[in-house]
Amino acid sequence: MNYRAVINILGKIMFLEGALMTLPLIVAIIYGETSTYISFVIPICILLSIGLIFGLKKPKNNMLLAREGLAICGLAWIFMSLFGCLPFVISGMIPNYLDAFFETVSGFTTTGSTIMTKIEGNPLGLLFWRSFTHWIGGMGVLTFLMAVVPQGDGQSMHLMRAEVPGPKAGKIVSKMTDTVRILYVLYFVLTVAEIVFLMFSGIGFYNSVVTALATAGTGGFSVKDASIAGYNSPYVEYVVASFMMLFGVNFNLYFFLIMRKFGTVFKDEEFRTYICIVASSVGLIVINLLTTSQVAFEKAFRDSFFTVTSIISTTGFVTADFEQWSIFAKIILVLLMFVGSMAGSTGGGIKVSRIIIYFKQMINDLRQMIRPRQVMSVRLNKKSVDNSILKGINTYLVIYVFIIITSVLLVSIEGESLVTTFTSVVACFNNIGPGMEDVGATANFAHMSVLSKIVLSFDMLAGRLEIFPMMILFIPSLWKRH
Amino acid sequence: MNYRAVINILGKIMFLEGALMTLPLIVAIIYGETSTYISFVIPICILLSIGLIFGLKKPKNNMLLAREGLAICGLAWIFMSLFGCLPFVISGMIPNYLDAFFETVSGFTTTGSTIMTKIEGNPLGLLFWRSFTHWIGGMGVLTFLMAVVPQGDGQSMHLMRAEVPGPKAGKIVSKMTDTVRILYVLYFVLTVAEIVFLMFSGIGFYNSVVTALATAGTGGFSVKDASIAGYNSPYVEYVVASFMMLFGVNFNLYFFLIMRKFGTVFKDEEFRTYICIVASSVGLIVINLLTTSQVAFEKAFRDSFFTVTSIISTTGFVTADFEQWSIFAKIILVLLMFVGSMAGSTGGGIKVSRIIIYFKQMINDLRQMIRPRQVMSVRLNKKSVDNSILKGINTYLVIYVFIIITSVLLVSIEGESLVTTFTSVVACFNNIGPGMEDVGATANFAHMSVLSKIVLSFDMLAGRLEIFPMMILFIPSLWKRH
Repeated sequence: MNYRAVINILGKIMFLEGALMTLPLIVAIIYGETSTYISFVIPICILLSIGLIFGLKKPKNNMLLAREGLAICGLAWIFMSLFGCLPFVISGMIPNYLDAFFETVSGFTTTGSTIMTKIEGNPLGLLFWRSFTHWIGGMGVLTFLMAVVPQGDGQSMHLMRAEVPGPKAGKIVSKMTDTVRILYVLYFVLTVAEIVFLMFSGIGFYNSVVTALATAGTGGFSVKDASIAGYNSPYVEYVVASFMMLFGVNFNLYFFLIMRKFGTVFKDEEFRTYICIVASSVGLIVINLLTTSQVAFEKAFRDSFFTVTSIISTTGFVTADFEQWSIFAKIILVLLMFVGSMAGSTGGGIKVSRIIIYFKQMINDLRQMIRPRQVMSVRLNKKSVDNSILKGINTYLVIYVFIIITSVLLVSIEGESLVTTFTSVVACFNNIGPGMEDVGATANFAHMSVLSKIVLSFDMLAGRLEIFPMMILFIPSLWKRH
Repeated sequence: MNYRAVINILGKIMFLEGALMTLPLIVAIIYGETSTYISFVIPICILLSIGLIFGLKKPKNNMLLAREGLAICGLAWIFMSLFGCLPFVISGMIPNYLDAFFETVSGFTTTGSTIMTKIEGNPLGLLFWRSFTHWIGGMGVLTFLMAVVPQGDGQSMHLMRAEVPGPKAGKIVSKMTDTVRILYVLYFVLTVAEIVFLMFSGIGFYNSVVTALATAGTGGFSVKDASIAGYNSPYVEYVVASFMMLFGVNFNLYFFLIMRKFGTVFKDEEFRTYICIVASSVGLIVINLLTTSQVAFEKAFRDSFFTVTSIISTTGFVTADFEQWSIFAKIILVLLMFVGSMAGSTGGGIKVSRIIIYFKQMINDLRQMIRPRQVMSVRLNKKSVDNSILKGINTYLVIYVFIIITSVLLVSIEGESLVTTFTSVVACFNNIGPGMEDVGATANFAHMSVLSKIVLSFDMLAGRLEIFPMMILFIPSLWKRH
């Protein structure tokens, strides 16, 4: 590993985090929360100092290969969380460091699993920082760094590949820096659009902003104890549900939409499948709700639409207590937890495109058994999928299963129920937020043991970074000087 | 598909089943159960007639390719079960045809999930047939056919590959027919050994035989309502547990043992891993039982040893009610359900060798990211694993997950709890027998809906035949004449 280059970029990231932390400080100043100033000022000073010490001097050899890209990505997110939780600890809002770390990891990874039992009444600046971590994590910090401080195109590619979700990271315009800038502009515009829509509901500017930040990152932290249900507004629920669905879409498609390449968008196989999955899941759950309980159609549709988009986009906002739904509906939700959103979106999970490839590969391999000599290839959007990508997504599945198994085993030591144990891992690893039973829609993660919180923090990071940047840190040969 | 050749072999299989069914008839005659004679005589006549009509005339073109091998395998097992359940229906022991079909599939596939709520008191001839299906299914019917009616070596290979569990079916001696004969002799000898050991316990000849048949096939049907716990004998429990472990071992290793190739056996990676998994699981559960409950060491060890070998060998005999164990112990059991036994044994599950390959592949791929140019290969027993086998086991995992998901979704419609729904599928698909909660150690599958029973029957067959022979039946191009 090229240590100097890695440390240099990590330094820049820390500087960036310090800079971003001034925003919640400003919020605190606006609301006159004087007692919380210090809890932002100390970490800001630490982060900026680290940034100036390590990030300023350009190393002679700044060559980055895939391994450095992955290592930077994994380490950056760990350090971001280690420092990002300081405001919560210093202010005493979350006095326990591990709890604050868990909460911050949950924020940056856009998971939204919380250890807080009481959210309303806390300082608005700190709650803003909590929601803002979702927004930062949604599009990615390395991506943000590339947008503000342009890196060489070769370097950027490795950093981008390590951080952007999906089996394959592509440029939409010829230069990487331009690509990430366009993505960030789209991200910003969509977020502002949601704020505007929410403002019409009368829930106020602050609530609109924090809700939009958490939606945009597909995070799920809310400033209300009852999540989005706390606003008691069907209008808010529809707006948030619609935007959750939109933020689960590959951002490249929005760019093509602006470029008026409508065909590319509406013929995109992943997009079509995503829409089909959402529509059929909503449909099945509506039918199920109408037949199993006394509920009006509008309410059934709204609850179903909100919950489905919340889970598939891996946001994790809650309106209906789906704990009370039938097993059939719950199984659909658990399956959606695994599916996740589209590649290149801010959401988590396995990603729709991988699911499509797994499915096509399966059909292909079965056909191949009948006609062993015929040459067949897996095709996505009429292009044949590269063998290296196929191998990559197969490895992905193996490691994915391996992490779930190991995590479930470790979390089971604390002795929660089978469903709680299993869904806590699934919800964290896929960056959803709430699981079921004791970590369900109306519960939280406060009661989990120290070991479980560490394991679940790892799972959230591994889930957001699509496994490899975290797993590679465990391979000893990474740490050799090359 | 070469229809004539396929029908010819299916005919032979039906004849064989008819012949095998005379054995329970003899048992019924010995015990003077006159009223049940007819329930064996009718199906025997039907099966022998079908066999004589379709199995006698050798087709001109008897060429079999991989696709025919798989199709024969899938169809043979379905037909065997469709006819094999007739004695239960005609005698009225299981009056409902679907229930009897489920029970027979569970028998042949060596699953051991039962829909019978009361077992003791039923005619001994019928209960013998129920246990005997395990023994037939354990080593496989196509394998048996090859042992009695030698086929061409090329044909045999395709049939063998389709039926024998594990990523790769190998010959141990140069001729296929000799290989299967040796395997069947070993199988027979080990079964007799268990009968002899059980005879010393004083549970009687009949009980010893049916218990040994069910152990040998790693099935799990018992003639006692309380399974092996019904014998109230620690000696029986130790004997059965030891033999469950032995029948989970690749039979090729016993051949090598007889050939005095001790090195090959004890250096076998899959064997070592299997032993390690058993030992560590037993150890962890013993510690867990001793710390969480007031139980003597011998009892804790016996329960743990019995349950672990019962689950990993996918037999499914029960002594302790593991429903009462801690979540940690239960999670270990659920994981063992997936692991399963060794390739080339009579057990089910994913198989230890596949797990080893998945793990090594994972480590390799992570290392490859750090040194992209280095050539690495997955090695098992010091031999590099073929790329086609790697591809095969990756596809296997994808289809495996796909079947579990689809089955869980379908079974969830009937509205059992999450744990019941999930473990019923896992226990059937991996050919274990009991799941947890409402299909747990002391429960059964009688209460499941018609849809669930059909889905679970499919899962049992797909699990025993390692997916492909069942899945290929759904691909339309198989059914074209070639």
